[in-house]
Amino acid sequence: MNKLFTTLTLAALTLLATSSCNSTCQKTEPTTVQPIQTVVPERPAGQTDVIQLTAPALDTVRVGFIGLGMRGPGAVSRFTHIPGTKIIALCDLRPECVEGTQKILTNAGLPEAAAYTGSEDAWKELCDRDDIDLVYIATDWKHHAQMGIYAMEKGKHVAIEVPAAMTLDEIWALINTSERTRKHCMQLENCVYDFFELTTLNMAQQGVFGEVMHVEGSYIHNLEDFWPAYWNNWRMDYNRNHRGDVYATHGVGPACQLLNIHRGDKLNYIVSVDTKAVSAPAYLKRTTGEDVTDFKNGDHTTSILRTENGKTMLIQHDVVSPRPYSRMYQLTGTEGFANKYPVEGYALRPANVDNDVKLDHENLSYHGFVPEDVKAAMMTKYKHPIHQELEETAKKVGGHGGMDFIMDYRLVYCLRNGLPLDMDVYDLAEWCSFAELSALSLENNSAAVAVPDFTRGGWDKVKGYHHAFAK
Amino acid sequence: MNKLFTTLTLAALTLLATSSCNSTCQKTEPTTVQPIQTVVPERPAGQTDVIQLTAPALDTVRVGFIGLGMRGPGAVSRFTHIPGTKIIALCDLRPECVEGTQKILTNAGLPEAAAYTGSEDAWKELCDRDDIDLVYIATDWKHHAQMGIYAMEKGKHVAIEVPAAMTLDEIWALINTSERTRKHCMQLENCVYDFFELTTLNMAQQGVFGEVMHVEGSYIHNLEDFWPAYWNNWRMDYNRNHRGDVYATHGVGPACQLLNIHRGDKLNYIVSVDTKAVSAPAYLKRTTGEDVTDFKNGDHTTSILRTENGKTMLIQHDVVSPRPYSRMYQLTGTEGFANKYPVEGYALRPANVDNDVKLDHENLSYHGFVPEDVKAAMMTKYKHPIHQELEETAKKVGGHGGMDFIMDYRLVYCLRNGLPLDMDVYDLAEWCSFAELSALSLENNSAAVAVPDFTRGGWDKVKGYHHAFAK
Repeated sequence: MNKLFTTLTLAALTLLATSSCNSTCQKTEPTTVQPIQTVVPERPAGQTDVIQLTAPALDTVRVGFIGLGMRGPGAVSRFTHIPGTKIIALCDLRPECVEGTQKILTNAGLPEAAAYTGSEDAWKELCDRDDIDLVYIATDWKHHAQMGIYAMEKGKHVAIEVPAAMTLDEIWALINTSERTRKHCMQLENCVYDFFELTTLNMAQQGVFGEVMHVEGSYIHNLEDFWPAYWNNWRMDYNRNHRGDVYATHGVGPACQLLNIHRGDKLNYIVSVDTKAVSAPAYLKRTTGEDVTDFKNGDHTTSILRTENGKTMLIQHDVVSPRPYSRMYQLTGTEGFANKYPVEGYALRPANVDNDVKLDHENLSYHGFVPEDVKAAMMTKYKHPIHQELEETAKKVGGHGGMDFIMDYRLVYCLRNGLPLDMDVYDLAEWCSFAELSALSLENNSAAVAVPDFTRGGWDKVKGYHHAFAK
Repeated sequence: MNKLFTTLTLAALTLLATSSCNSTCQKTEPTTVQPIQTVVPERPAGQTDVIQLTAPALDTVRVGFIGLGMRGPGAVSRFTHIPGTKIIALCDLRPECVEGTQKILTNAGLPEAAAYTGSEDAWKELCDRDDIDLVYIATDWKHHAQMGIYAMEKGKHVAIEVPAAMTLDEIWALINTSERTRKHCMQLENCVYDFFELTTLNMAQQGVFGEVMHVEGSYIHNLEDFWPAYWNNWRMDYNRNHRGDVYATHGVGPACQLLNIHRGDKLNYIVSVDTKAVSAPAYLKRTTGEDVTDFKNGDHTTSILRTENGKTMLIQHDVVSPRPYSRMYQLTGTEGFANKYPVEGYALRPANVDNDVKLDHENLSYHGFVPEDVKAAMMTKYKHPIHQELEETAKKVGGHGGMDFIMDYRLVYCLRNGLPLDMDVYDLAEWCSFAELSALSLENNSAAVAVPDFTRGGWDKVKGYHHAFAK
């Protein structure tokens, strides 16, 4: 990133905290401690927000892909199954990655795409073409934002793998570019389309859980066997050099949709607490012999957020501990409860509680999950329209159990119908901001850090999160 | 409580936070934000800590019980099964509670105990007797500390139901009284004796999980059907008047034992975030018709702590949402993982991972819990000596599945053998301090609040948590 907009200064903190004691307090002026603030750059003159942004409907969505390492080829493969798309160009630094991906096209009976490779700037040539509508970016994290900005400047919509941005500077630059160019800038967060999440979101939107009060999400995934697969060791290096929840979006995305973030509510502040770093340095010692003493990211990072409407969100990050995979995904509402890991279940207020269970204060399992048959009936009743339409195709095409296909399909569907996308640049901003905001909290003994209003005043315009559908 | 020691003043907070930005920062002096401090009262002259406190062995433990409402009668019943005890006196404000409990004694073929009832001060007369060694307190929360202090002053050991103290003032008073009188002051935290917890603690102490990095615990229990059972509505009233994690010990106790708190590590600070209050006011409206607008405690409160040795602890409190009961109980170590709710399971580093599972970055269940037979074998191998001795009796006597009996048995066992108790007054202090410390954090927009070193310098004397056994 070059000249960017943000100047990250820190607001002065109020000196003294209120006292909650009720005996012999030394009285001080009751002033509460305030969260650390980062600067919100003023919206450039003549520019408006992109809330519910629509662009002219595209009959065919012409796509260029950048990054054909771990995630790119799968995306190309999925696009061969999506009607109304044309794969125009492929780009990767490594020629063999481009060649391998061309085979996906020819195997699908499609012509080869234009190839861009062999130089650090090859991706710019792809973006410079005038026959592409959408640039799909699946490189390492550090190149995401820069590519997205360049592509929008060249008149393209962009879809960027997670996390689409790593710093507040990058985030504000993406927002300002999307607002100025009126181009869509969507983060490719797939987990919001997973079956349990989307079904549960539908239940929440229809009031099954009453008012949603608390949500949880995480990225808990032992990457021990995957580290060698990352090009140039970029992911391990990133964790070595950065403290904080550097990969929050899979947990945050579904949680934010449940809370209608910037659709009637907004994230106010975050607090983060991490452990010291032990497992990654031990892994590096085992595999390389190096005694690593400068590893920054802790084994396990926990963050909590509070919203304007008094809801809370718990987020965790752990990619080094020997734990079962978990995105946690949990919601607590005034009328019900949903939980995904390690077992999926729903609980509801007494209507569904087994009345044969005797009330007994020694009996701690009085309130439990609804029985399996009730759960199955609920999940059928509240199956999301998107799943009703796409479930069979998604299973066939695959990609993390179908959610990757649904994500790509929805992106194309909305572009072809001139609809707002399911996720806008402010979702991207909120979900990616945890990286820098959590680091700022950690570097200040877990002080609360304000989450900027990335909509700059527009968070309450839309009431409730909704997917758009063509009439 | 009358004149107590603590004056809760708040340390000035450092004005400016360090900046983590790396572009065009406005440079400020890099000063980190520090946690809010509460005052640690100086240890009175001539007084020393009670770490590993022992008292002369008692052949027979003569007990007086105060509080015979919800928890007291069960305790009396359990004591009728513990050898080497004598139930001397019973006290409750309500004569019918004393009479009902006398029947437990006569049904067990024991003589009736001396009865104290009918006045707010009857419990003092019980404490004044000179033929009692242990006062066992199971009243409402607000009387716990005051009774414990009085009983110690009268030369008695005390065992106090959870939470034993609600404020820092009460906590420091209990500590100072125990240190001065050299009397045991144990909190009756039963959950540390539950089967999964104690087995897992044994595994942790024997290194099965490597270095324990992160632990979780909670009190998530929908009390909707229990509210009317509390004398004088004290528990609902307490939540109405107090914000914060007012009932943390069931989650905190087992978590602190895993982290060896004040046995080589110490809690440094806490941050808390809560939701607004919705469910309890709605309950009060439904059941009493009252429009409650002053309800302080949020539906769901989440706290995170960091220790001196760089470990973290996550604690939750929710007594109003329609959720399955959960104390969470989870640990993440460098070599393994344990989880109790909603399903018990252990995960370990690759040695126990199924090698037939193909490495596949699309396969998110690569690392899972060990199979049921492996888990069963582990739990047999690491069954705690206390359970080996007491399991059958505990099941027969009961009380939350046997853990209440084990708790009482261990208390008597240690007193009869002149051993340090399993939980000392500093455990009580740490586990109870969350109520006021979390409130202080919440009232300051989730600012970090320092956890006092209740040992006043002795937290690193003992290396590792251990149960004492007679030679």
